[in-house]
Amino acid sequence: MTEFRFDQWLDLYATRVNMMRSSEVREMLAVAARPDVISFGGGMPDTRVFPMNQIVEATQRVMLREGHAALQYGSSEGHVGLRRHIAAIMSEVDTAIGVDDIIITDGAQQALEFIAKIFISKGDTIIVEAPSYVGALQAFMSYEPEVVGIPVDDCGMQTDILAVELERLRKEGRQPKFVYVTPNFHNPAGVTLIEERRRHIIELSEKYGFVVVEDDPYGKIRFRGENEIAMRSMDERVIYIGTFSKIFSPGMRLGWVVAPKAILEKLIFAKQAANLCSSSFSQHVTDEYLSSFDWQKNIDDLVDLYRERCATMISALEEFFPEGATWTKPDGGLFIWATLPEGLDSGELLAESIREAKVAYVPGRAFYVGVQKNSSLRLNFSYCPSETIEEGIKRLGAVVKQQLALYRSLFKGYSPGKDKNKNKK
Amino acid sequence: MTEFRFDQWLDLYATRVNMMRSSEVREMLAVAARPDVISFGGGMPDTRVFPMNQIVEATQRVMLREGHAALQYGSSEGHVGLRRHIAAIMSEVDTAIGVDDIIITDGAQQALEFIAKIFISKGDTIIVEAPSYVGALQAFMSYEPEVVGIPVDDCGMQTDILAVELERLRKEGRQPKFVYVTPNFHNPAGVTLIEERRRHIIELSEKYGFVVVEDDPYGKIRFRGENEIAMRSMDERVIYIGTFSKIFSPGMRLGWVVAPKAILEKLIFAKQAANLCSSSFSQHVTDEYLSSFDWQKNIDDLVDLYRERCATMISALEEFFPEGATWTKPDGGLFIWATLPEGLDSGELLAESIREAKVAYVPGRAFYVGVQKNSSLRLNFSYCPSETIEEGIKRLGAVVKQQLALYRSLFKGYSPGKDKNKNKK
Repeated sequence: MTEFRFDQWLDLYATRVNMMRSSEVREMLAVAARPDVISFGGGMPDTRVFPMNQIVEATQRVMLREGHAALQYGSSEGHVGLRRHIAAIMSEVDTAIGVDDIIITDGAQQALEFIAKIFISKGDTIIVEAPSYVGALQAFMSYEPEVVGIPVDDCGMQTDILAVELERLRKEGRQPKFVYVTPNFHNPAGVTLIEERRRHIIELSEKYGFVVVEDDPYGKIRFRGENEIAMRSMDERVIYIGTFSKIFSPGMRLGWVVAPKAILEKLIFAKQAANLCSSSFSQHVTDEYLSSFDWQKNIDDLVDLYRERCATMISALEEFFPEGATWTKPDGGLFIWATLPEGLDSGELLAESIREAKVAYVPGRAFYVGVQKNSSLRLNFSYCPSETIEEGIKRLGAVVKQQLALYRSLFKGYSPGKDKNKNKK
Repeated sequence: MTEFRFDQWLDLYATRVNMMRSSEVREMLAVAARPDVISFGGGMPDTRVFPMNQIVEATQRVMLREGHAALQYGSSEGHVGLRRHIAAIMSEVDTAIGVDDIIITDGAQQALEFIAKIFISKGDTIIVEAPSYVGALQAFMSYEPEVVGIPVDDCGMQTDILAVELERLRKEGRQPKFVYVTPNFHNPAGVTLIEERRRHIIELSEKYGFVVVEDDPYGKIRFRGENEIAMRSMDERVIYIGTFSKIFSPGMRLGWVVAPKAILEKLIFAKQAANLCSSSFSQHVTDEYLSSFDWQKNIDDLVDLYRERCATMISALEEFFPEGATWTKPDGGLFIWATLPEGLDSGELLAESIREAKVAYVPGRAFYVGVQKNSSLRLNFSYCPSETIEEGIKRLGAVVKQQLALYRSLFKGYSPGKDKNKNKK
């Protein structure tokens, strides 16, 4: 409600403040905190199932052995032991890196902020997927870039369109600084970038001289099928971002960036100015957890849980959503991207959904730059138990159907595709 | 060694990267990591004396009671329980604030970064003390401001000079965005801003329309005398920055900002883009530590320890430093600011000091913008045990005397003040 409050400092703010807005995801999280609301907003893993005793034990060992270091400032690059674990995790996806190729960040979010800070001067051009991760857009927009969005289909970013846009930008004399992609289990679209297109983006980066930023928070949350090859392992110049938020704990606030040495050096300057180092306490305890416990088994258990919840959500969508609605069937990650029958705006529907159905989600427009109206919604299936998912989709489906009926009575004769919905009821 | 490495991305970086440099403090910390070097660099509290069992116990309780929340994303404003403790801590210095006036940051450093981000557009004017905290300068410079430095004397920032500079800026049509001060036990100068000048700065802020940023990391590390009144309690429009780094643990990476609501809202946008929230794990454990243990007694013990180490360092300086050298005698904080006899450059001396004496410190030039030569050095007394302090100052004093003798043989007839040094030896 900024607009209605007198702000005596308006003339003092930097121009970038005009681009900094609260995200709808954030407003969703605030709503989700009300116990009577079922929230499919947010992107939270289910930390309730985590073996807490492992954290207690890890903390005990850390404090006894190296408590003074866990309570002290650490290096800006991050705890060496933890970086060793990360190098091992990365080698599983065929990416051979050393400890010195990595810096620890406060989750993937801080890596995105730093990349924005070191590459974007006001007015510079960057390229993202459309839709794209809302937190990345927030970090990027705060450095005032011009954003070009490339549409996503079932195989990820449409690289033929990317090629056309790059040629257009070159003719306009605009050098794109980077292309940002989430190749595995895209947030929000749920799709995975196919290998052919990964290679195409790398080729284009050589031809047009931009940096490829590969954000991979969900790669290890795979329900079925084989891992795709990481873009970083196709080309060492790719900046790769990883995180412990989905495979361990977002509350530790730990992620990492792998980048070429020259870029890494700039990222370290950014880290120093931003917060000197990530929580040493979090880093030491996470290092000990990875050293002492079967963390891969914990991930496997999580993946089993999320696979089941994803299947439950898909069944519920089939049962309760109206004809004409569509949704992705992801092979991993945390999200389903549902699209309402043409004409319905998911942003407008949200207030109704919270009030009538007490169900929250993130409206599609949050994932685009400059889009006001959109018929898609992002549904998170990792956080709520299966019963809650079923109940929530049922209630949400009823609101969608009700709005659809209202829409039809207002625009008589309108019919999105074959409408069997009335028959079903 | 950036200069000698080929960097193929040079054309892609944002212009601000030119202003982002590694700090000498950082290089010092790297040197200090070598076990054979006595380091008076850095600004580390002594975490070796901390009662580790209290952290273990606090973690146990947190994980049992609310482990899922400690491992989960938290709100961008920060954990409510922890903010309640902060409000209580602030009320001790007569500053009446509520939980909603505070946001948690990753130490004071992140607060400085956010203030820079929301107020500084490229080329904007800001005002700092000269010398000033190197981490603040790093955060500010990365947003490309014009910096005006106001000299500091034994009573803190010289506000008569500030008044003159403000008038000059007004005539030039330049609106300073903020004035940054560290009123208590200044880093590096060790001095405390007297009340009269605090009020003067507040008056000037009304007349010239800038924001006052009050950074107070050391206020509770007081060896003698009474607390000064906080500037925030003189004027609610002051932005106040606090931290747990010196009174508890820097490794938790927790600090806070108190600001007017409109500014706080912008800071929260910055927090979301930067890292979503500070480590929930750190926040919950720190909250539990403050709730369950006598943290004030732990601070009192620390203050006793630092008071003794400070006295040891002053005695050692008196014994081992040459005539003509001067140093502050702080009533609190972590640092002594020593100034060498005229002609000696503390920056040049550093390599010699590390090589010959195996003693590290931070040369004065690190605390100024655009200063290459400076005869002061910042000496930290909180981290090393007293014996080490004595040995280190002895070795450092020998190098200083040696360099002074060399200087004199090069510039015959040179004599800084009354030189009784030779007689002493």
